[in-house]
Amino acid sequence: MTLISPSRRLRRTPFSQGVEAAGVKAYTVYNRMLLPTVFDSVEADYHHLKQHVQVWDVSCERQVELRGPDAGRLMQMLTPRDLRGMLPGQCLYIPIVDETGGMLNDPVAVKLSEDRFWISIADSDLLLWVKGIANGYRLDVLVDEPDVSPLAVQGPKAEDLMERVFGERVRDIRFFRFDLFQFEGRDLAIARSGYSKQGGFEIYVDGTDIGMPLWNLLFQAGADLNVRAGCPNLIERIESGLLSYGNDMTDDNTPHECGLGRFCDTQTAIGCIGRDALLRVAKEGPVQQIRPLAIEGDPVGPCDRPWGLYAGDVRLGQITSAAWSPDFNINVAIGMVRITHWGVGTRLRVETDDGERAATVQAGFWN
Amino acid sequence: MTLISPSRRLRRTPFSQGVEAAGVKAYTVYNRMLLPTVFDSVEADYHHLKQHVQVWDVSCERQVELRGPDAGRLMQMLTPRDLRGMLPGQCLYIPIVDETGGMLNDPVAVKLSEDRFWISIADSDLLLWVKGIANGYRLDVLVDEPDVSPLAVQGPKAEDLMERVFGERVRDIRFFRFDLFQFEGRDLAIARSGYSKQGGFEIYVDGTDIGMPLWNLLFQAGADLNVRAGCPNLIERIESGLLSYGNDMTDDNTPHECGLGRFCDTQTAIGCIGRDALLRVAKEGPVQQIRPLAIEGDPVGPCDRPWGLYAGDVRLGQITSAAWSPDFNINVAIGMVRITHWGVGTRLRVETDDGERAATVQAGFWN
Repeated sequence: MTLISPSRRLRRTPFSQGVEAAGVKAYTVYNRMLLPTVFDSVEADYHHLKQHVQVWDVSCERQVELRGPDAGRLMQMLTPRDLRGMLPGQCLYIPIVDETGGMLNDPVAVKLSEDRFWISIADSDLLLWVKGIANGYRLDVLVDEPDVSPLAVQGPKAEDLMERVFGERVRDIRFFRFDLFQFEGRDLAIARSGYSKQGGFEIYVDGTDIGMPLWNLLFQAGADLNVRAGCPNLIERIESGLLSYGNDMTDDNTPHECGLGRFCDTQTAIGCIGRDALLRVAKEGPVQQIRPLAIEGDPVGPCDRPWGLYAGDVRLGQITSAAWSPDFNINVAIGMVRITHWGVGTRLRVETDDGERAATVQAGFWN
Repeated sequence: MTLISPSRRLRRTPFSQGVEAAGVKAYTVYNRMLLPTVFDSVEADYHHLKQHVQVWDVSCERQVELRGPDAGRLMQMLTPRDLRGMLPGQCLYIPIVDETGGMLNDPVAVKLSEDRFWISIADSDLLLWVKGIANGYRLDVLVDEPDVSPLAVQGPKAEDLMERVFGERVRDIRFFRFDLFQFEGRDLAIARSGYSKQGGFEIYVDGTDIGMPLWNLLFQAGADLNVRAGCPNLIERIESGLLSYGNDMTDDNTPHECGLGRFCDTQTAIGCIGRDALLRVAKEGPVQQIRPLAIEGDPVGPCDRPWGLYAGDVRLGQITSAAWSPDFNINVAIGMVRITHWGVGTRLRVETDDGERAATVQAGFWN
């Protein structure tokens, strides 16, 4: 791995001081912001996440805020998921598509009230798309990026830790719902969500000034729970089938190619900008789709470019995320595979940076 | 410095293989793509750039391509610079603003023909803003990111090296103009431009497949010119007053605050989306503006967050880029300063990460 040069352009977060004190070893850049990737080692972080509780600086999940009379209308223009039944207090995973049906982001939408939403984004400047659409259609809505930084508490002991800080009412939050909790005189939205399958919460920290006080309080309260600073874990997220925008999909892909057809109500999502483009693929299905794959042999190196998938000399897709799984004793991977070869058990040849391997299409993800 | 974790999301470039072979030591991430920042050391790279010739992988200056009958109209909607006189073959530095006059990017526009432009972007997903505007206003234009990656040849011997590869006609290219040159059967636009003041060219490499052949040819042809792999140099660009979007300005700033008023024709740029918002500041001037500043004392560390500028206890601005200059024997810096304190020679207090320093507003940049 190479070094990363610091600059203001790679934005620090309200929790950077805590992240540094905890001994962060590596970063990625996500939405032009620092996102930790390693504290102890990727494998040690993985084992700890599955056994204890971690506090994650995921400030890079920036919010795009929509506020005003046309906020609901604009939300529906952005996604093929039908939002008519969405209630305040609810979070929804929504594919966002352009006029060709290409994925622009796969965020979580947070409905604060009838005329106010946050879109908690993956890695693309969705703010610019939403502002452009709002301007072009002359909608009556304010669109901006507020000073709100998510802090995730993840792992099997997450609920215990959160109860100590926010009271037992946190246990009542249902999956992908949020409720409001007081901290230093401010109402913070806390959702049961997060980028792992180990359970946990995301706290939408409203204001940089309360970032470190909350960080410190969580570590004080969780000392006997073996709480540590952590981050989204490459191995765990592949095992769990959590996709990564920019890695596993780009604007070349439709939601259906990404296996997100169940989040598309293409017939009824009237007003969605990409609706016309998606009607055919919604009806007939895609010709390639994301699949879990196991790669045989020793641990593979990091997948920093698409690794071609082949049968004979014919390229049939690519692997875009891969890691050695200590718990499943195999290289777990995510790839995009052509319809002709995506059947469970299909064996393919994958060209990694270190040479050829055999890969097999799996029936499902591991977690 | 901390490590950077590789992933497909931090995109490699057509020249990554050459960059790695040349011993890149550090990267930044720019438009979700790897941009080298150090080869030997920032200081050694700086001295070499001023004496010899370097080849820079600046693929991260992605192109937003506008093509179709409404391409020219859309270009004018994006910028307060009057584009009516722009000719095919011309490059223009253009501020891009939103409806509030806030800077969204400060790219170089390249006019390929009357109905085809490239916008060679700084660090924001300008593609999404342009696509959103095109969609919202129902313009007859195609907007996408082509497989075009700029390769810069910079330094006093740049012209000599380029002549050896592309012939003596490269000497005829005027500043911020481009002409077409053949390479492996393809027409490549080559402009006299680049992110240094040491002179040079940018080759718009059209197609990933010809990236490494061109890279290798430049190094073969320039062996006796002491050609090296290089990159935009922090010290040189501050000395030269080359601003960095995301560092020295954000969408909070108007072009006038960035000292880019001379690139705004706010009265005549009819159709520019931010025109109304900018009319007042264009007439009355901004209340804060970017200034060159010298910071006294030993070399400062990297400016990875805004450093507050103060007179007494009153905050009057911030420094956003800083580096020790071996040639000028002072810390050169770029900051934003309030109108009351931006006069040449004004002494201010700057709060760096390592404590307080004195800083003085300069009459001009150093190069």
